Amino acid sequence: MTATPSAVATPDLTCYRCGATAAFPDRKRCECGEPLWFDTDDAAADFSWPEQRAGPRSDAGRGVWRYADLLPVGPPGDTAEGTREPEPAGVAAAAGDTPLVRAAGLDADAGCRLWLKDETANLTGSFKDRGSAVGAAWAAAAGREWLGTVSHGNMAVSVAANAAGLGGDGPNALVLVPDDISAERLAAIDQYDPAVLRVAGDYGRLYYETLAADAPVAFVNSDTPLRVAGQKTTALEICEAFERDGAASAPDAIVLPVSSGGHASAVWKALRELRAAGLLGEADLPRLYLVQAAACAPIAAAYREGADDVTAADETAETVAYSIANPDPPSETRALAAARETGGAVLSVPDDEIRDAKASLAAEAGFCVEPASATALAGVRRLSDRGDLAADDEVVAVLTGTGFRELSAGGEPPEAIGLDDLPERLRSLTG
Amino acid sequence: MTATPSAVATPDLTCYRCGATAAFPDRKRCECGEPLWFDTDDAAADFSWPEQRAGPRSDAGRGVWRYADLLPVGPPGDTAEGTREPEPAGVAAAAGDTPLVRAAGLDADAGCRLWLKDETANLTGSFKDRGSAVGAAWAAAAGREWLGTVSHGNMAVSVAANAAGLGGDGPNALVLVPDDISAERLAAIDQYDPAVLRVAGDYGRLYYETLAADAPVAFVNSDTPLRVAGQKTTALEICEAFERDGAASAPDAIVLPVSSGGHASAVWKALRELRAAGLLGEADLPRLYLVQAAACAPIAAAYREGADDVTAADETAETVAYSIANPDPPSETRALAAARETGGAVLSVPDDEIRDAKASLAAEAGFCVEPASATALAGVRRLSDRGDLAADDEVVAVLTGTGFRELSAGGEPPEAIGLDDLPERLRSLTG
Repeated sequence: MTATPSAVATPDLTCYRCGATAAFPDRKRCECGEPLWFDTDDAAADFSWPEQRAGPRSDAGRGVWRYADLLPVGPPGDTAEGTREPEPAGVAAAAGDTPLVRAAGLDADAGCRLWLKDETANLTGSFKDRGSAVGAAWAAAAGREWLGTVSHGNMAVSVAANAAGLGGDGPNALVLVPDDISAERLAAIDQYDPAVLRVAGDYGRLYYETLAADAPVAFVNSDTPLRVAGQKTTALEICEAFERDGAASAPDAIVLPVSSGGHASAVWKALRELRAAGLLGEADLPRLYLVQAAACAPIAAAYREGADDVTAADETAETVAYSIANPDPPSETRALAAARETGGAVLSVPDDEIRDAKASLAAEAGFCVEPASATALAGVRRLSDRGDLAADDEVVAVLTGTGFRELSAGGEPPEAIGLDDLPERLRSLTG
Repeated sequence: MTATPSAVATPDLTCYRCGATAAFPDRKRCECGEPLWFDTDDAAADFSWPEQRAGPRSDAGRGVWRYADLLPVGPPGDTAEGTREPEPAGVAAAAGDTPLVRAAGLDADAGCRLWLKDETANLTGSFKDRGSAVGAAWAAAAGREWLGTVSHGNMAVSVAANAAGLGGDGPNALVLVPDDISAERLAAIDQYDPAVLRVAGDYGRLYYETLAADAPVAFVNSDTPLRVAGQKTTALEICEAFERDGAASAPDAIVLPVSSGGHASAVWKALRELRAAGLLGEADLPRLYLVQAAACAPIAAAYREGADDVTAADETAETVAYSIANPDPPSETRALAAARETGGAVLSVPDDEIRDAKASLAAEAGFCVEPASATALAGVRRLSDRGDLAADDEVVAVLTGTGFRELSAGGEPPEAIGLDDLPERLRSLTG
């Protein structure tokens, strides 16, 4: 453990809305109230796709680190002095590089040419590893003793695992959970042995309080600059895959569940940087569609009403997509801008359509996702129905998190037979 | 659904022990009693590592399909006529290409230079996707209406998902489970909507009965030729990653949990083929160490006694590593040969060491695995203690399956504080 924080050179922060700049890590939010992100525009102007890489790799150039030129920090193992241990360190070295799978079997259902970007293949089962890896690498390089987050779901698991993966060279993890967290959720976090504090009081207010400039813990909450930087790589991977496949430099649309708005912001930032790099023409810019659960859809409401600002939703609404049910998303206005500026939209889908989409993803395509992720396919269906997506549009739906941690038993038991009856039963089955 | 089975050209099968050959799919076991595998020796002689590939990919050359030259069938989308839909189809296109992560933080604990091959990154959370993908692709190409397996764990989930992923172009899945399967395990399988039959009677006998030549269902049980072919790619990826990284063409040792012996057989076959291709010198051959749970360790017992044949274990023993507790493994003798011929060993580890290894993998490295997978690290520790592994040995432990489907709640609830107490608590934490 490096006890003394050291200076790590990062780009400054900038506000997408008012253009103000600030130094990292002193601030995370702009004085105008909006979230800040890293000003990587200069790096983006010179960016080109990295050279081809060789087969299955174990090195630090894999996954999110493939795009290190556009990140505020290098892979874990980098040090403040610029020297680097040549071996990657733990889980944080393996974030990203998730499969982009053509799901032609769902085309008719989806009303477009559907691709699934499967973020469940990240080592803790969700896209959160992308930002946690960048956060953990920065904390290690800067000698911060603690890496923190405010979460009781995927982000908590991811921060705990990524910090653990750096071992003695990395920070300890601190996870702030609500007072009434369930034993099941706690077990998923606890296995990585982070410090956990249950905090009674307003969980929304807690989010902002932890971002105070003098916090002795490096908090990588869901729309913080380090996390947004890491999450850019979702879009970089999608666009590079399309570019390399040769047909187009990007899909026509990207459809994403939206909660805090941090992932949506990151995808938007990546598209802006690819445009700055000349790797994405104005006409090639994918439309960004963001999907909320109808039970808690403040950004979709603002989009529908043409409002510039988002009004917080009623906290009491329940939905199967609870992990994206955010009544007052910290990057709500930035997410709204992302959808509008790319010619996309923000929409909401009811629980019955979310459940149905989840079932289709498993039974028709083989993917096990959490309900929050199934909103992406439910959104695609609605967008096709209303004509926003056409049958020949190449559409990427991002499956943000695994369903393996919340499988619920139920239903009728299957047919029972004796072993001796098997040959006859097999013959009748195949008629 | 293609209703009429068509001929798909595959290599013949051969027996590693007596050298007899047989045609696929007519037989799966040799007349001498041993399991057969595909005779891909001719292809191997001409094999070289594929060309570098470009970044994050979505095409059919990803993962297991990177090594299609050494497989009995091409990626899903291939047809019997040799034409191919250029787009990959579903989950089966995305099997493999899992991270190989250097876990330097565990070196002191492991007594060697430790790498973790993380098979939990496969889309259904285990290495089983490698063989299921090859099985599903063959069934689709051959026009088989049903793809079956005998399993109530990872393999059942994987076969159901891979069949579902091929949609209307692929086979239906049939999963044969024990009569008394738990509701939780059934839920994990059922989501993909396969046909499920509960079979009362001897589950070990069921394994062999489903492999009868005239079964109208293509069964890809755990040591069948198609599954073993797909599982070769675990070792191909490991060796290619070492080769590309430049230091050595392979690790010094590979440590693998062993259940049926199918995965161990596949790793051995891959190493033989790389040697035939001239890509692995005799001196570079990794030693293959296979680990069983002490409660059910018939192969380890035969190894220790220097026996040529394995005596079935007592069925009643219980272990936390239940998914590898196989009292009479169908590829037991082949696994024994794999360990001996590579200069490795077969060993067993008790449950307390398995639990401890599982906890270390999570808290010290950030990996959440099922107990059966933790036997690999427990085995590494024992091998180092007894001098089979040296501190400078490069050792790959294969983490075969995810722990996300069986998180158990428990332990003390963490400290609770009020929101207003947070600043003081953070200061004291980092004080």
